Amino acid sequence: MKISILGGGGFLGRKIADRLAREGTYAGRPITGLTLFDMHQPPAPAAGFPVTCLAGDIVDLPEAAMPAGTDVVFHLAAVVSAQAEADYDLGRRVNLRGTDAVVDACRRLVAAGGKPPRVVFTSSVASFSATQTDTLADGAKQIPGNSYGAQKAAAELILADASRRGFMDAVSIRLPTVTVRPGRPNKAASSFFSSIVREPLLGLEAELPVPDDFAVWVCSPRRAVDWLLHAGAMDTAAMGLDRSLSPPGIRIAVGEMLRAMDEVRQGSSALVRRVADPAIAAIVGTWPAAFTAKRALALGFVPHEPFVDVVRAFIEDDLEATRRERNAAS
Amino acid sequence: MKISILGGGGFLGRKIADRLAREGTYAGRPITGLTLFDMHQPPAPAAGFPVTCLAGDIVDLPEAAMPAGTDVVFHLAAVVSAQAEADYDLGRRVNLRGTDAVVDACRRLVAAGGKPPRVVFTSSVASFSATQTDTLADGAKQIPGNSYGAQKAAAELILADASRRGFMDAVSIRLPTVTVRPGRPNKAASSFFSSIVREPLLGLEAELPVPDDFAVWVCSPRRAVDWLLHAGAMDTAAMGLDRSLSPPGIRIAVGEMLRAMDEVRQGSSALVRRVADPAIAAIVGTWPAAFTAKRALALGFVPHEPFVDVVRAFIEDDLEATRRERNAAS
Repeated sequence: MKISILGGGGFLGRKIADRLAREGTYAGRPITGLTLFDMHQPPAPAAGFPVTCLAGDIVDLPEAAMPAGTDVVFHLAAVVSAQAEADYDLGRRVNLRGTDAVVDACRRLVAAGGKPPRVVFTSSVASFSATQTDTLADGAKQIPGNSYGAQKAAAELILADASRRGFMDAVSIRLPTVTVRPGRPNKAASSFFSSIVREPLLGLEAELPVPDDFAVWVCSPRRAVDWLLHAGAMDTAAMGLDRSLSPPGIRIAVGEMLRAMDEVRQGSSALVRRVADPAIAAIVGTWPAAFTAKRALALGFVPHEPFVDVVRAFIEDDLEATRRERNAAS
Repeated sequence: MKISILGGGGFLGRKIADRLAREGTYAGRPITGLTLFDMHQPPAPAAGFPVTCLAGDIVDLPEAAMPAGTDVVFHLAAVVSAQAEADYDLGRRVNLRGTDAVVDACRRLVAAGGKPPRVVFTSSVASFSATQTDTLADGAKQIPGNSYGAQKAAAELILADASRRGFMDAVSIRLPTVTVRPGRPNKAASSFFSSIVREPLLGLEAELPVPDDFAVWVCSPRRAVDWLLHAGAMDTAAMGLDRSLSPPGIRIAVGEMLRAMDEVRQGSSALVRRVADPAIAAIVGTWPAAFTAKRALALGFVPHEPFVDVVRAFIEDDLEATRRERNAAS
């Protein structure tokens, strides 16, 4: 089993790489090679199989990023929401031309006699727009309210078509807002959904740019990794032409997130300051806060745990590493 | 009123140009310039305003194709269905990179202080898939069964996002199969829907690759031109983020098309030979045969005439010109 992770230096890419390194097998087969590709050279996890780490531009994807015999590609490379909104050309280049480059790399593998690789693509809840009270069914139309979402939705179409043509075998997962993210705040408009839990648990202040009753569709890093790994190993025959799905996240108001945090660490939410940010609110305000996710459940994607468990898992998996990184940088 | 038609040498582009030339005004304002752009230099209609005809590559769209002060752009340039299926790179280049080039040309106009131009884009029924018995509502999800449809659906997303960003003011119309097309059979998988009427009316044989009860969502060239001109002049405020619509075509079985033809010219359908073509049937078999089109009707798009009127209009508008072209070429 040969696996490539494009965007392998990002936080989900690293978590997938760590898990593969720990388990040594994937989809019931021994892993014989893992390639991590990112803008900057990703760190290699300690593994019982060869790990190759490469730096480069996704649009000029080198052949070594998806070597001959690649079975599964996790295509996580992206320019995130606020950044794609701020820099149209950069978002279009990475999120669309980058996806074309992945298609072309798969075409080369198939042209050389290889099997169409499974491609697991991280699309986003941001490819939809809806009000706070809507619950979107699986057939809901994607009407994005931001360039990131538009580019992700367009990429889904391109990957589904590439699958139909036999260039690859794609599964696109429209990830909820992944919360609690480790590390530092990033340029995603959704960054604060993690900061309001991560920063107080580090003893630091965080800003909340939306009202407490603002609802959001979230998933934990653990669940996101489970879903991506399931998407890479599942039988896609039942998917037909539609290679995309909305996984079973949870709908939660930010105020409930703070209460769950206080349940785990009393008083933490006192570090959260309410500072309205209309620009951020405008972007995240168009994202739907709930999905039925029936298709994903039928396809074997595991349901989500309650948010209090998400807080506990962050403390268990990421709090100390995040603290060490912050201390090392300061 | 300055107007550009990209794909101005195609049959719809020429019909729009002829109509604008005849009327001299558009959306209540005098036309001050018309630019026709295509791969090969399009013919100029006789007009009471300046007409510029340019040849070039849509991906390297020259500034002159959309000069300063352009109010309305009809973006009709495309690689059609069977061709996009046969040549993936060509379809992607023209249908996606070409659309990016139109976005960039609009950005240049806006950056130079101009108003975001209205862009009327011809998307397609081929961006959906459905069974013969489905009637798709306006909120139906696009799940294309062919590369042409996937590229059109992706282009719709890109144009809607460009509108939200203020680069342009787009209206994408998912045209039904336009029937009866003048000229010769082309590389569209849907070409036969026109051939089975046009060729017999010219006294020539035509092949029907699908069964007589095969239903299709069609519109006449007259109605397509009306809709495109309405899209270029209408108020888009009510459209919100969703810049696409399915216009009110008609659902008809090919056998009914032949009966309508016989009603106008008795015995014509005797020239139609049934020759099953699984490749063509596979492409057109995934296109939905009916839409509710409520949104388009509410936005002022005119309803469709019965098919017998379509046959009569073809005879009135296009039969002699098509005959002359054929004779000149032979």
